[in-house]
Amino acid sequence: MKKLFNTKGRMADDMIDGFVSAYPDIVVRGQSPRVVRRKTVRTKDGKVALLIGNGSGHEPIAMGFVGEGLLDANVVGDVFAAPSPDMILEGIEEVTGDAGAILLISRHEGDVINGNAAAMMAEDEDLNVRPLLMYDDISSAPKGEEQDRRGAAGTMFIYKILGAAAEAGMGLDQLYTLGEDVRARTRTLGAAVSPGVSPLTGKLMFTLPEDEIYIGMGVHGEPGVGRRKTGPVRELVSYMVDALLDDGPIAAGTPTIVLINGSGGTTMMELLTIYGEVASLLTTRDIPLEVPMIGSYSTTQEMGGFSISLFTPTPDMLALWQAPHKAPHFPHIDRQGE
Amino acid sequence: MKKLFNTKGRMADDMIDGFVSAYPDIVVRGQSPRVVRRKTVRTKDGKVALLIGNGSGHEPIAMGFVGEGLLDANVVGDVFAAPSPDMILEGIEEVTGDAGAILLISRHEGDVINGNAAAMMAEDEDLNVRPLLMYDDISSAPKGEEQDRRGAAGTMFIYKILGAAAEAGMGLDQLYTLGEDVRARTRTLGAAVSPGVSPLTGKLMFTLPEDEIYIGMGVHGEPGVGRRKTGPVRELVSYMVDALLDDGPIAAGTPTIVLINGSGGTTMMELLTIYGEVASLLTTRDIPLEVPMIGSYSTTQEMGGFSISLFTPTPDMLALWQAPHKAPHFPHIDRQGE
Repeated sequence: MKKLFNTKGRMADDMIDGFVSAYPDIVVRGQSPRVVRRKTVRTKDGKVALLIGNGSGHEPIAMGFVGEGLLDANVVGDVFAAPSPDMILEGIEEVTGDAGAILLISRHEGDVINGNAAAMMAEDEDLNVRPLLMYDDISSAPKGEEQDRRGAAGTMFIYKILGAAAEAGMGLDQLYTLGEDVRARTRTLGAAVSPGVSPLTGKLMFTLPEDEIYIGMGVHGEPGVGRRKTGPVRELVSYMVDALLDDGPIAAGTPTIVLINGSGGTTMMELLTIYGEVASLLTTRDIPLEVPMIGSYSTTQEMGGFSISLFTPTPDMLALWQAPHKAPHFPHIDRQGE
Repeated sequence: MKKLFNTKGRMADDMIDGFVSAYPDIVVRGQSPRVVRRKTVRTKDGKVALLIGNGSGHEPIAMGFVGEGLLDANVVGDVFAAPSPDMILEGIEEVTGDAGAILLISRHEGDVINGNAAAMMAEDEDLNVRPLLMYDDISSAPKGEEQDRRGAAGTMFIYKILGAAAEAGMGLDQLYTLGEDVRARTRTLGAAVSPGVSPLTGKLMFTLPEDEIYIGMGVHGEPGVGRRKTGPVRELVSYMVDALLDDGPIAAGTPTIVLINGSGGTTMMELLTIYGEVASLLTTRDIPLEVPMIGSYSTTQEMGGFSISLFTPTPDMLALWQAPHKAPHFPHIDRQGE
């Protein structure tokens, strides 16, 4: 598949140009060209900063989530490549005030190494930065070894809830604990049906027989936990929901938010069908459902596939989840229900 | 590419099940199973109804745009197939009160024939329904023959502005005239880089040499106006913007809204890059830009490609465009700027 860009070397930069020119009242490019930050940084008011550095090519996550009530900054790496510690440090410097910062890290090797290094460098500059690892993909390490799991689409719950809490004035330690608690309440499992094309190589990112589906593949094509034959999507979804509930049981009566995330090349028609099957299975178990999130938010180019995330918020978390925000490409949860 | 569904015969129905279960406070399935309508129909208050019947497979348009301040109903056809006149009539009957209805029709042959037939049948039942043809694709008929053009992504401006105006109490004749005026101020041109797969046949919808791009292809793979060799996207965008401005000149100083619509398989990274190029070209011509709309709203499965729409609203139209709404899958324009 042909990709629409100018030059390989400018892919992330041209994307940032487009984004900041589209929403100039909300986001600006920082002093460092790969830092996208809120136009008005509020950390002088004692607000804790919230930011993340990550590889590009997964949009709208995470650059599209910068804005009031969500991220203060995103440090944009090259396609599928974590930004360097120096670049992440520049992002930290641009938004961190006396109240400190939470540096979100979606758990992938390069992101962890570079994020932790940047946080240590910031400490040398007397900036109080706490890295928060995010991991929700149950296929990437067994139960009991959650800290070895990868970050997946369920990280969106942490972004939004910490973003709203930081905006409301919550302090650094409390935010960190809240983030851990949201993480513990979130589980994700994905399935891939067809590869995307790497914009760097122009090649398919993996191959998969026409009648098979991978379960648990990572956002860069990392190996999954198994293959299934194609068939009615109801059977696939039933298998995945069982796996999620085995890993993290949800008691009847526990309000739950479902996130159906498309990988890029899977249509809204399919995502809605999948949501319908998930909702039906959870309702049968007497699990009440909050307004879901259905769309392609954390993508792997035009890969075909999806993930199911289940999150059981406390009432406080739910209120933060539904709080208004201004991030250009994060859904407006408060407008989706009544 | 594998598609995720249960059975071919249930594709649209399963999708509707998922949609109405996701947003039960906003939308419900009508008495007719292919009618998706607002939970609370306001036409008893003298509100003009606004609805459309169209083939599915292009989501989120149009089903995702049902909700307060937007559509009152969508009649959902099979994939890529206009619903029958009887089905459209059922939709009209469910939402039309004394103030009448505007039946939007995105100009494609089956939609026009069936929509007009449904409007005539409604007249026999003393329902006052005015069909409004929508056409914005400049590649499908020459200047001067605009009424022969196809409907494309730029129809979103009509949906939203008429939806907000109807909600605010505007009468039928005024709404119709407003719709014609929005239509006259909107132009769209698309480009396709790779085919999507028909969920009906499992086959690619067309073929295209690896180094070529089609200009002006329709949303069902209808023939375009020409081919170009691949190259830097800046050159393609420049060609397309010139074509749009040749067809509908925009004077310096005229506020303009840009819509960059992805066809399904084109990434947000690419769409943002394209927007950056469009914004740069228009700014050079001293055309001031309102907050744009960038995303995959009117899709053709996972087809690779995009369209550029340019719309020059009056101040009244701009206010209606930015008015709040509750449609689950329409962007919240009021939250995207300041």
